[in-house]
Amino acid sequence: MSRPPFTPTVAALPKLVPFVGPEAMERARGRPFRARLGANESVFGPSPLAVAAMREAAGENWKYSDPESYELRAVIAAYHEVPVECVVVGEGIDGLLGLTCSLFLTPGSPVVTTDGAYPTFNFHVLAHGGKVHAVPMRAFREDVPRLIETAKTVCAPLIYVSNPNSPMGTWWTAGDIAAFIAELPPETLLVLDEAYCDTAPEPTSPAIDVSNPQIIRYRTFSKAYGLAGARIGYAVGERSTIEAFDKVRNHYGINRVGQLGAYAALRDQDYLKGAVAQIAASRNRIRAIAEANGLSSLPSAASFVAVDCGADGAFASRVLTGLLDRDVFVRKPVAKGLEHFIRISCGQDEDLALFAGALSDVLASVHA
Amino acid sequence: MSRPPFTPTVAALPKLVPFVGPEAMERARGRPFRARLGANESVFGPSPLAVAAMREAAGENWKYSDPESYELRAVIAAYHEVPVECVVVGEGIDGLLGLTCSLFLTPGSPVVTTDGAYPTFNFHVLAHGGKVHAVPMRAFREDVPRLIETAKTVCAPLIYVSNPNSPMGTWWTAGDIAAFIAELPPETLLVLDEAYCDTAPEPTSPAIDVSNPQIIRYRTFSKAYGLAGARIGYAVGERSTIEAFDKVRNHYGINRVGQLGAYAALRDQDYLKGAVAQIAASRNRIRAIAEANGLSSLPSAASFVAVDCGADGAFASRVLTGLLDRDVFVRKPVAKGLEHFIRISCGQDEDLALFAGALSDVLASVHA
Repeated sequence: MSRPPFTPTVAALPKLVPFVGPEAMERARGRPFRARLGANESVFGPSPLAVAAMREAAGENWKYSDPESYELRAVIAAYHEVPVECVVVGEGIDGLLGLTCSLFLTPGSPVVTTDGAYPTFNFHVLAHGGKVHAVPMRAFREDVPRLIETAKTVCAPLIYVSNPNSPMGTWWTAGDIAAFIAELPPETLLVLDEAYCDTAPEPTSPAIDVSNPQIIRYRTFSKAYGLAGARIGYAVGERSTIEAFDKVRNHYGINRVGQLGAYAALRDQDYLKGAVAQIAASRNRIRAIAEANGLSSLPSAASFVAVDCGADGAFASRVLTGLLDRDVFVRKPVAKGLEHFIRISCGQDEDLALFAGALSDVLASVHA
Repeated sequence: MSRPPFTPTVAALPKLVPFVGPEAMERARGRPFRARLGANESVFGPSPLAVAAMREAAGENWKYSDPESYELRAVIAAYHEVPVECVVVGEGIDGLLGLTCSLFLTPGSPVVTTDGAYPTFNFHVLAHGGKVHAVPMRAFREDVPRLIETAKTVCAPLIYVSNPNSPMGTWWTAGDIAAFIAELPPETLLVLDEAYCDTAPEPTSPAIDVSNPQIIRYRTFSKAYGLAGARIGYAVGERSTIEAFDKVRNHYGINRVGQLGAYAALRDQDYLKGAVAQIAASRNRIRAIAEANGLSSLPSAASFVAVDCGADGAFASRVLTGLLDRDVFVRKPVAKGLEHFIRISCGQDEDLALFAGALSDVLASVHA
């Protein structure tokens, strides 16, 4: 009486969780956080039109949602001025990254990414047996020229780039990215994760060119659109590549309420503009709090700020622990060269006031 | 300028969609259906407590949901009297079937299932490069003894059994299933899909035994619980098997609103009992409508009824087309030996009145 063996890939995988959620931390602590500034959610929430659409949809949740997500894909396609066949909707960018691995990776496939960039991408690569080649950041930015060089050397089918980048908030301009695209080796696909593009200064994202089969663009409703709980992301790319997702995706995986919420959110660009302005103001406030505490921070194009704790990684870990102990949920990078930072998501004024008080208190206590 | 090649498995896959959704059919027809009786949803909807929970959750949808789905797993575990570590939540049973394939299948792995059983399982097997060995039904039931014999012959790591079965609504008793489990060859896992167990007569499901690593049980909130749009399913099994899902699943794939809706729905067992009674009454009504039209039907333990159109598959296809043309959405099996049936999901009285009128009309016209 035994189960069949796991695949060699699964058997070789360590127990890995990309991010421990704040709820698990709260269960372990035995009390809730007072400020939720660690998961790069948007505390400013989604458009009220999206909330209204989701409330209304709740009563119709006995129906499966359209497995083609046609109406949502149609408004996304119109927004980006691309054919609807060039858009696929998934369970967040995370889900689409996993499917991308299913399309292109077999055990042993080399994949190039940045050390300290999005761990969930690495998680999916490893789950498909891929081999991660990680390049360090350069001046806290993803070193795209070196990523491309490495892809050439190892013949990688996939290069992962996030622009803007998490956890640092740094970015390349649209012109830079366009120049990198021109340098891609043949038979390499650029997985361009633009989760944070909506909060970035113009121009950060080059125009979407669905005639180029070497790039897929990944977008989400989880960040600036304020719908992290809805789990709706999408990918835009060349038609035959996007259509291949239909061979591997969970056709009935997209929930109805989230789908209708995202549809309403995308159509309310005025609200999005306002949320982006609130996020920008919050970024400035986080940087000012850091400065008031004698700490520097990186300019950020994303919905969070990386604050340099001014000493080594062990010191930053003590700051992180102190903030968590004071009920302020934030995170910190762990990659070499980034360990002296902590990362604070944008928040409401009251969230940031809690953060400011906790930070001063923590710094006084760890210096003492 | 070309993308990397798809994996050999993906490249070899035909364009396959498990089920074309009614929305796509409506777009093609240019008008909506008047009765939605084809997708085995529950028109009786979820508990009002679940609807209220989802409405309230809509305003909090800026937060990611707990990636461990801990509270939902805890109530599921308590309901089944198993440890919480033996429960994994996924994007419907569909999502969990795909993950099961990720855990156990490599290209060429043999998998045993029933010809005409759940096509979405086959879809995931093929997407993982597995080879489907399909056994015909016997007296419109899944021929589990022969499935087990075939698994022995081909050394299959996975056997798929649905109990009750779709599209026929037939079932085995709990005692039968327990006897089959005792006959499983070593290193074969029984994928026991119990999507429709909540509407089945007692005892259809044997007690869940999480000490046996050869079975995973799959349950859903999409059927009797009336939450198809929420995309919440779960699997229960031996702890080390269930924990392995963490190596391959999309940790942030479960939407917040659906998770809270499922939590509320599970806790309202009184409502579920009422919905199950409504489904049972609707089944009887469908069978009576069939009989009134001179057609026989199969006793069903599920939330639908398979009606024998009384002639060959081509005739049943004409009946199906006639019903669709009259704005009644139903489906029909396509597997050999089942083609003369159509399948009607349970509905409200007004849905079934539309079906009854359309069926009489269609039969008159196809006989003419």
